[in-house]
Amino acid sequence: MSESTARDTDTQDTGSGQASAGRRGHLLSLPLDHAGSDREPHSYERWMVAKLMRMAGSPPLAFTLWNGDRIEPDTGSAQFTLHLEDPKALYALVANPNLAFGDLYAAGRLTVDGDLPDLMETLYRAVHQASLKWPRWLEAIWRNHNPRSTGIAEAKENIHHHYDLGNDFYRLWLDRAEMQYTCAYYERDDLTLEQAQLAKLEHVCRKLRLRPGMTVVEAGCGWGGLARYMAREHGVMVHAYNISHEQVAFAREEAKRQGLDHLITYVEDDYRNISGQYDAFVSIGMLEHVGKDHYPGLSALIKRVLRPNGTALLHSIGRNRPMLMNAWIEKRIFPGAYPPSIGEFMSICEDGDFSVLDVENLRLHYAQTLSHWMERFTAHEAEVADLYDAHFVRAWRLYLAGSMAAFRAGSLQLFQVVFTHGDNNELAPNRRHLYDTPAAPEQP
Amino acid sequence: MSESTARDTDTQDTGSGQASAGRRGHLLSLPLDHAGSDREPHSYERWMVAKLMRMAGSPPLAFTLWNGDRIEPDTGSAQFTLHLEDPKALYALVANPNLAFGDLYAAGRLTVDGDLPDLMETLYRAVHQASLKWPRWLEAIWRNHNPRSTGIAEAKENIHHHYDLGNDFYRLWLDRAEMQYTCAYYERDDLTLEQAQLAKLEHVCRKLRLRPGMTVVEAGCGWGGLARYMAREHGVMVHAYNISHEQVAFAREEAKRQGLDHLITYVEDDYRNISGQYDAFVSIGMLEHVGKDHYPGLSALIKRVLRPNGTALLHSIGRNRPMLMNAWIEKRIFPGAYPPSIGEFMSICEDGDFSVLDVENLRLHYAQTLSHWMERFTAHEAEVADLYDAHFVRAWRLYLAGSMAAFRAGSLQLFQVVFTHGDNNELAPNRRHLYDTPAAPEQP
Repeated sequence: MSESTARDTDTQDTGSGQASAGRRGHLLSLPLDHAGSDREPHSYERWMVAKLMRMAGSPPLAFTLWNGDRIEPDTGSAQFTLHLEDPKALYALVANPNLAFGDLYAAGRLTVDGDLPDLMETLYRAVHQASLKWPRWLEAIWRNHNPRSTGIAEAKENIHHHYDLGNDFYRLWLDRAEMQYTCAYYERDDLTLEQAQLAKLEHVCRKLRLRPGMTVVEAGCGWGGLARYMAREHGVMVHAYNISHEQVAFAREEAKRQGLDHLITYVEDDYRNISGQYDAFVSIGMLEHVGKDHYPGLSALIKRVLRPNGTALLHSIGRNRPMLMNAWIEKRIFPGAYPPSIGEFMSICEDGDFSVLDVENLRLHYAQTLSHWMERFTAHEAEVADLYDAHFVRAWRLYLAGSMAAFRAGSLQLFQVVFTHGDNNELAPNRRHLYDTPAAPEQP
Repeated sequence: MSESTARDTDTQDTGSGQASAGRRGHLLSLPLDHAGSDREPHSYERWMVAKLMRMAGSPPLAFTLWNGDRIEPDTGSAQFTLHLEDPKALYALVANPNLAFGDLYAAGRLTVDGDLPDLMETLYRAVHQASLKWPRWLEAIWRNHNPRSTGIAEAKENIHHHYDLGNDFYRLWLDRAEMQYTCAYYERDDLTLEQAQLAKLEHVCRKLRLRPGMTVVEAGCGWGGLARYMAREHGVMVHAYNISHEQVAFAREEAKRQGLDHLITYVEDDYRNISGQYDAFVSIGMLEHVGKDHYPGLSALIKRVLRPNGTALLHSIGRNRPMLMNAWIEKRIFPGAYPPSIGEFMSICEDGDFSVLDVENLRLHYAQTLSHWMERFTAHEAEVADLYDAHFVRAWRLYLAGSMAAFRAGSLQLFQVVFTHGDNNELAPNRRHLYDTPAAPEQP
């Protein structure tokens, strides 16, 4: 969908935002407000735009204001143009750039000429460079927000907000193999999304050194694809935990359909209630939702449920250094989300006296995964608008494009960390077994 | 050499310890002191032994005292026997078990029946388990010592103490391929020490993705083997830094002999004085000597000397959680040594805003390396005694056996960490290139 089409859609949307706000909780904000959009901009408003661009590291982008006035970048020529549709949009952007950019884009009050992921990558890189020279107060203002709690009750609400949007919605653009809503593994760069997601599942199984008859516990199992893959391809018994009601219902049905229900128990419960002992502990894409305060608890849990010679694997979005989640993503898309820095990630292992065996960073694999998701999402925007509305389409378009950009710009990382109890000597002699044969199936 | 032979050697050594103490700096301490070894032990001395064993987690070992009295372990039967040759040895052991064990063993005042690495592994595992339940004051007493500084002046002295012991000494028991005094890589478990050390060098080169014509800077190059391997096998130009005079002299001569001196510059200088910019930064076994306080400086240095798309690799002994170096090793063998925990290791990467690409733990490879070293060392003990004396032989026997035990028991780890600048997108697509062909040469 071209950006001009997106702008056309926006105009059909006037007023409908408020009606759906209640239904989607915190997702909606900054509804259309065109007050003042018929007046000339003041000179200090043009100055504010220029100031904002310098704070953001002078990226190569121009602004056009509500009356058509154009403000070119300080340096070089513009590769992108941002349109501010009304004066209040400018004030919102200046007051809280990080949060307002997303809200205004989703509301159709800030529109974009140019490739959205490219623009976002350019912005991320410019802001990152600029932020290295920022005074503390600016860093504090730019990043400041209060992420939601991830206690047991709040976690359920946070997860419901995102993962219970409806299986029909996710089916439109996730892979058709195992509905994986996490980073795929492109062991070859020509893999389809389906192949790369299956390659990820196989890569994880190899890292866990699964053998038939082993027992595995999975924390945060999504639609249950990894559990089914492990049971089907490696003959293990899986207990898989998830607090998303819709996902668990889907997972159970699918396991039954595939005749795997005797090997898999899907438990609709918080990971903190995992009991028993297992040969492997695995969690793909849950740590982002655990929250830093709960890392010691997670560590103690793994310590308790992992057998003496067991292997654990945590797969999570991460950071090169500690930083709050992007405010807009945390508030509107992923409440409570916090990707750990590599050091915070390691604190989970240190707390449990675990031995870290292997860390792999799949950052650019996530950029590629998001590129595949976005291709499909874009092709289905009309259906998404039917399920929700145009505001929702824009918000998710920005979320996918911004995430792709963040992985490309190095703002986000993807860490797979393998570890075991500190005194376990039953280790793989080396990592060759991960690469003996292709992990992806040959058929796309 | 059997332990009974070792005890025979000890007796020839009486009094010679003092004479060589000055020559080797802090290496020597607790010289022979047999005062009181003709008297009966007091009952509270037997109680002290029992108490010490309980503090150490009740390992399956018996003590015999100077008069032949035997004290069995609380639980089960003894697998090892420790002989205390005089009453003062007991008091030293109780006052500072960690330091005195090594000093007494080296002085011949504590001797061992049973396999020394096995005994040490048993001790490490027992003490580790016990220490989880220790009160804080006991932990503090057990671990307490003040590691030496690693400032520029002190570093030179620290390194001289260990690495300038003489190339003739190290040649007796290190590999004959490239004199590697760091962990080898046993990609197959039947590799010779020479094959495994060359496999390590190749594994490191593959992780750095070396191509002919690239430039590499190496911090702490030992006898220069990695630099020669990189130049010879991968056609790169290397600047290799080391503050050990004897090692640099050896390295230069060897490079000349191999006709590689046009590709390699060995610089006798501190790593903190590295200048220029390079495609790769590598350091094998130096981080242990850098000291925690100097990690931010190392991080800033790598940031400065690594080209925008360059790759860095740090290979170092490490820990699962922060802990001081064993006091005896730090005081007598490796002044200033401190192996970082995985979290402290990652702080180097976080400080520099680096992206961690790959962490591999080669812990059991180091146990195997040490086993090979110890085999050769044991075969050459008589020559080592000729070069130094029996005290030195015992100290190094204990150091090698204790290190092997520490890697087996999980007290020490070996981390290879690969990282790059946070905004570098020229990354290897995955890690398959490390495993395409064997890293070790076929000929042993």
